[in-house]
Amino acid sequence: MKIGIVGGTGDIGEGMALRLSTTFEVIIGSREVDKAISSTKCCQDILQKRGLPCCCSGVSNQEAVDYADVVILAIPFKHVVPTLATLHGFEGKTVISPVNPMEKRDYFTFVPPQEGSAALMIQRLLPTDTKVCTAFNTIAANRWKALDEELELSVPVCGDDDGAKRDVMAIVNQISKLQAFNAGPLAVSSMVESLTPLVLNIARYNKMKDVGIQFH
Amino acid sequence: MKIGIVGGTGDIGEGMALRLSTTFEVIIGSREVDKAISSTKCCQDILQKRGLPCCCSGVSNQEAVDYADVVILAIPFKHVVPTLATLHGFEGKTVISPVNPMEKRDYFTFVPPQEGSAALMIQRLLPTDTKVCTAFNTIAANRWKALDEELELSVPVCGDDDGAKRDVMAIVNQISKLQAFNAGPLAVSSMVESLTPLVLNIARYNKMKDVGIQFH
Repeated sequence: MKIGIVGGTGDIGEGMALRLSTTFEVIIGSREVDKAISSTKCCQDILQKRGLPCCCSGVSNQEAVDYADVVILAIPFKHVVPTLATLHGFEGKTVISPVNPMEKRDYFTFVPPQEGSAALMIQRLLPTDTKVCTAFNTIAANRWKALDEELELSVPVCGDDDGAKRDVMAIVNQISKLQAFNAGPLAVSSMVESLTPLVLNIARYNKMKDVGIQFH
Repeated sequence: MKIGIVGGTGDIGEGMALRLSTTFEVIIGSREVDKAISSTKCCQDILQKRGLPCCCSGVSNQEAVDYADVVILAIPFKHVVPTLATLHGFEGKTVISPVNPMEKRDYFTFVPPQEGSAALMIQRLLPTDTKVCTAFNTIAANRWKALDEELELSVPVCGDDDGAKRDVMAIVNQISKLQAFNAGPLAVSSMVESLTPLVLNIARYNKMKDVGIQFH
């Protein structure tokens, strides 16, 4: 299973690459190939020092899409439209959106686009046979990168294609102690995306760090 | 501390009364006083059999408002407008909204009123000096009633009055193992209310029962 990370040199993308590349073939994409190559070396060094396997390579965002079976859009909401405008070749692919449309004023608020959620907007921007799923929305970059700590967190997954959703849930369940939950069709992805501003507010108002969620 | 439960003979209200009346003076309100009295007897019997203290009484919804320091609106969203239209005397009181505006089609969706959330709508319907807080939104009736099980759940609390929010969080933290989290002002209560359709969908799609949430 080849997983491409568009925006793989950002904070979240780097963390995801660290956790994913011990199990999957990870293709780290970036607007600047040099950055992707240097992130890849960094990822390899960190995992090698721990005696962990690492299978990753650094390429352009377009190549990350081209080579991958599953593409993760590890980019902030405001970069989604301009980034997708530069990319093609998503036909038939599974795309994971961990994207959360939100704004920070005195506190974080969920500010969805007119489609109702980032995931629905992404589905509209991509070819109709692209299988968009939400996942990983609430996991903070620091938690991805803290390799000494297990990720004992729940991951709600939305999507309209049952096969793609099963694949995404299987990926989730192979990372640390993450537990995937089917959260329904893409139509309800706003209820997943709005978890992130909620946990950011909870962190802020209760002097906590990197708050995560568990369902049980 | 006297806690009045408007709609105290409903499924959620009865469960709340069971858990709250071992610690607080609970006033169970109902449109029909007979029902409130019979719910009160039921609550007393259940707790007495377990050797637990029980301080509760059954009255009309209006009396529950009149006698209470803190009023819980344990009613479905669709009953909020008609119920509040029959009640008065909320001036200066703390009101807890566990109300979630949602609809069930094939799945549950969050369908807020034009104010953005049930809590903001309730604040608009009540006198301006009423201190509305959200709390208890995601706790299922069955969990309230399962007295053999501790409630190891997180409770996000929103509100604009710091004193009232502290009081509500203190109430939450005295019930079983519930843990209150300050989730910010009432303006972000939609992000708390939308948790409920989310966990109902997770329960449905993953064949679980009474799914709850923990932040950590």
